[in-house]
Amino acid sequence: MAPDGLHTGQAVRLAARNGRLSGQTAGLAPGFVQANLAILPATDAADFLRFCTLNPKPCPLLGVSEPGSRTLPRLGADLDIATDLPAYRVWRDGELVAEPHDIAEHWRDDLVTFAIGCSFSFEEALIADGLEVRHIEQGRNVPMFRTTIACEPAGRFAGPLVVTMRPFRPAEAIRAIQITSRYPTVHGAPVHLGAPDQIGIADLGRPDYGDSVDIRDGEIPVFWACGVTPQAVVAAVRLPFAITHAPGCMLATDLLNARLATS
Amino acid sequence: MAPDGLHTGQAVRLAARNGRLSGQTAGLAPGFVQANLAILPATDAADFLRFCTLNPKPCPLLGVSEPGSRTLPRLGADLDIATDLPAYRVWRDGELVAEPHDIAEHWRDDLVTFAIGCSFSFEEALIADGLEVRHIEQGRNVPMFRTTIACEPAGRFAGPLVVTMRPFRPAEAIRAIQITSRYPTVHGAPVHLGAPDQIGIADLGRPDYGDSVDIRDGEIPVFWACGVTPQAVVAAVRLPFAITHAPGCMLATDLLNARLATS
Repeated sequence: MAPDGLHTGQAVRLAARNGRLSGQTAGLAPGFVQANLAILPATDAADFLRFCTLNPKPCPLLGVSEPGSRTLPRLGADLDIATDLPAYRVWRDGELVAEPHDIAEHWRDDLVTFAIGCSFSFEEALIADGLEVRHIEQGRNVPMFRTTIACEPAGRFAGPLVVTMRPFRPAEAIRAIQITSRYPTVHGAPVHLGAPDQIGIADLGRPDYGDSVDIRDGEIPVFWACGVTPQAVVAAVRLPFAITHAPGCMLATDLLNARLATS
Repeated sequence: MAPDGLHTGQAVRLAARNGRLSGQTAGLAPGFVQANLAILPATDAADFLRFCTLNPKPCPLLGVSEPGSRTLPRLGADLDIATDLPAYRVWRDGELVAEPHDIAEHWRDDLVTFAIGCSFSFEEALIADGLEVRHIEQGRNVPMFRTTIACEPAGRFAGPLVVTMRPFRPAEAIRAIQITSRYPTVHGAPVHLGAPDQIGIADLGRPDYGDSVDIRDGEIPVFWACGVTPQAVVAAVRLPFAITHAPGCMLATDLLNARLATS
């Protein structure tokens, strides 16, 4: 259910809040920043904040809430964290226990919200530059892979870097590196290119998450740090309690993608 | 003959002028921009200027003189084009006819001087960032290759793009792309990486100019547009008359490499 007319971050949030939007946000509110969400009790939040700080490429922080607060004023004036996403996932001891459209009943006074940058922002910049993003062209989810690159651990939070893969011809890859370098708060420049075996990826046709995409003659795989990394870590360490966005159902903000560019 | 104490562009120029310096300028005047030189009669200069303008990656212009003028005030206050390089090459009908240390006797009132950016500038930035530049580490000249990429022609000036090659591990290659992107007036970002056959290079061990360098396990070749391109074109089109710098004997300027960075 993706109603027409959702051209701003605020329109997407309101549609999610009043139940008109309950599905994916890809393609909605073009030009506006969308964010991954991780919501943790304050007892875990300090370590997780340190984890994000130590791993800025997979976990670029766009915002962190005050404990117990359902607002992120820098990301949206009227934003309500508990109602403004189309769908959430509630986790207990690392197990998915609910996928509600509203988390008001799960809310607690000790919850801290982390808004983490998402590659939607830089994909928009790639397309605006005339580059073709294969999984979008093929109508698929981006292919994601666990790598043998270890994140910097912080407290209980540790795990492998997850990457997304987009194939490009070499000259396009160079351009994509230049463009994404301008967007450090949405994963920034790639972490690797070419030889997938160097980072522990055995088969590009079998992603760990998402869909596989075609790699054409003369193209090389280019790998970016992925926002699934913090979610995978949150699940893997079996936190007693956590809430995340449901896959593809992001927090639409009032920030403009173009304003994330550093130059 | 490379005397000590040549720590500025001006010191290198004066040493060349008074005969104390007659050899290569690599490593002299660290921090200062060095330039390739092409000196052509005004009748050919308009087309050559158009050629440079159409091919900014191999031919990034740092300066162009007034016809007949031996000065380039933007590049050095007291600069004398006819005396300030350690060695020159004089060409007639595409043939090398002299390699003097001074071109005062060859000077003509219709000559136009083109100062073209040189990769020394960005190599300094790569090394400052902690990257290892293989040919420097191995004490060799950079390997250069003619490619199947055609330059944009302008008048009589036409020919293939010549590239330099530096091997890096993928994450280093990404960093090298970011760094050199900041230096568009000294060739800027690479034009290609990985598969050499895609740009017509059959054997990385047999460069067309310069020396071969080791490529180690897990490294990929990264290719930058090369300032040899305009010199090769000038020679190939058999101009009645032209003067260039002798290989490695560059024009040392008062510009700072750091000031070339766009960000």
